[in-house]
Amino acid sequence: MDTLWPQPEIQESPHAPRLRVVRWGKSWQAVRWQREEAPLPPPGPETLARYIDHTLLKPESTPGQIEALCQTAREYRFAAVCVPPVYVALAADLLADTPVRVCTVVGFPLGNTSTTAKVYETLQALHDGAEEIDMVLAIGLLKASRDDRVLQDIHAVVETAHAAGAQVKVILETGLLSEEEIVRACRLAQAAGADFVKTSTGFGPRGATVEDVRLMRQTVGPDMGVKAAGGIRTYAQALDLIRAGANRLGTSAGDRLVQEARKISKE
Amino acid sequence: MDTLWPQPEIQESPHAPRLRVVRWGKSWQAVRWQREEAPLPPPGPETLARYIDHTLLKPESTPGQIEALCQTAREYRFAAVCVPPVYVALAADLLADTPVRVCTVVGFPLGNTSTTAKVYETLQALHDGAEEIDMVLAIGLLKASRDDRVLQDIHAVVETAHAAGAQVKVILETGLLSEEEIVRACRLAQAAGADFVKTSTGFGPRGATVEDVRLMRQTVGPDMGVKAAGGIRTYAQALDLIRAGANRLGTSAGDRLVQEARKISKE
Repeated sequence: MDTLWPQPEIQESPHAPRLRVVRWGKSWQAVRWQREEAPLPPPGPETLARYIDHTLLKPESTPGQIEALCQTAREYRFAAVCVPPVYVALAADLLADTPVRVCTVVGFPLGNTSTTAKVYETLQALHDGAEEIDMVLAIGLLKASRDDRVLQDIHAVVETAHAAGAQVKVILETGLLSEEEIVRACRLAQAAGADFVKTSTGFGPRGATVEDVRLMRQTVGPDMGVKAAGGIRTYAQALDLIRAGANRLGTSAGDRLVQEARKISKE
Repeated sequence: MDTLWPQPEIQESPHAPRLRVVRWGKSWQAVRWQREEAPLPPPGPETLARYIDHTLLKPESTPGQIEALCQTAREYRFAAVCVPPVYVALAADLLADTPVRVCTVVGFPLGNTSTTAKVYETLQALHDGAEEIDMVLAIGLLKASRDDRVLQDIHAVVETAHAAGAQVKVILETGLLSEEEIVRACRLAQAAGADFVKTSTGFGPRGATVEDVRLMRQTVGPDMGVKAAGGIRTYAQALDLIRAGANRLGTSAGDRLVQEARKISKE
């Protein structure tokens, strides 16, 4: 899969066994590891920005607020903005000349809409200029072990989006799921050809946790995306989630996270 | 409009000025009014049941739970069940030989999906057997005074549903709106030809209040439906909302309300 986000690249030296040279995007860093499990070095502000889906999905959000969101995303060069379907065309127009992608949501936030509805929502979003589709899986059917229907539901959206060159993230809403269900959902999303699994909607019982992200990364392996979303408010949280395996972060506080990263990188 | 719900019919006697004879559906009741503003007599259990949309919209709800909901609705002869789009076909099959209608939700619960998506959700729901469509209006566009787009969005769903003989309720999510916005939303829903206005999704900041219902009834007049939904747990609450002007109640506790009404009518 073509990865849009920066992946740390780690080189070991045969001469200095505890030294790792780590590349985050264009910046290199030599790190002396204390233990085998020592954490990766923190990404700098520019690298962090490429992890962020700057997000505003509140039902009462207005066109004016979406414009402000896009302006911030352009300024910080975030990976994407994540906006409600009704504002995709607006965001796509505002970000046409930038590398910032437009992401929207489908079957959101409950996941219990029909597959047909999800497909048409996707088509309209693609038509309006979305390049990333975050869909909520059919949570109740997953719980009822109707894996065939869950898979079919995801696959229909993936097929629609991929035909237009867009990516699909499958939102699990981990706060409603058991560990077994999280693992099963990850496998179904992967089998259906999705590009990412994503922890939460931000409207469920809780947001992303380090445990969820670790379990999801373990399950899907290194070649699929893992997006952490919901309740990410600080750079420390972002760092923990990245270290646990996230390579995309959905947050409404993208600018604040990068500002914190800037402060830390200056220290 | 053909009213499906029971309306109280009040007759005055010229011989006994403080006496009113009130008909609730098939049952008659003579009431001595203390004051002009004295409340209507409470509906009995059977009448109350005809007000209720027995509701289960939780994202994690399973086919088994929907079957149980439909069984209860059949037993109590509720007006409708309100179920997620993905379970409309199941509910329609289970309730085919009963007077209980199948209601589902569109653009739910955020209202910020595209109009196209709302129309296709509606089409699929009608195809699956829904006879009532509870759609969420475009809250952000209402707040931004884009009344033309709000109207168009509602009208597209109404046109689709009416062509198939289904009713449309427009959910305002009053907890996010000012009084002025509630009045404007009611007028737009009415202008778009909707059959009901409805207070809340049950997923927003708060549920139905007596004040909201009163304002909505005042605005739409006597010929449009007003559905109160969200947080209705007791018979006393239900009664207050009916007296404020609601003629449909969305609740997950329909059976409990009717049981309470039975107790009271026996006292």
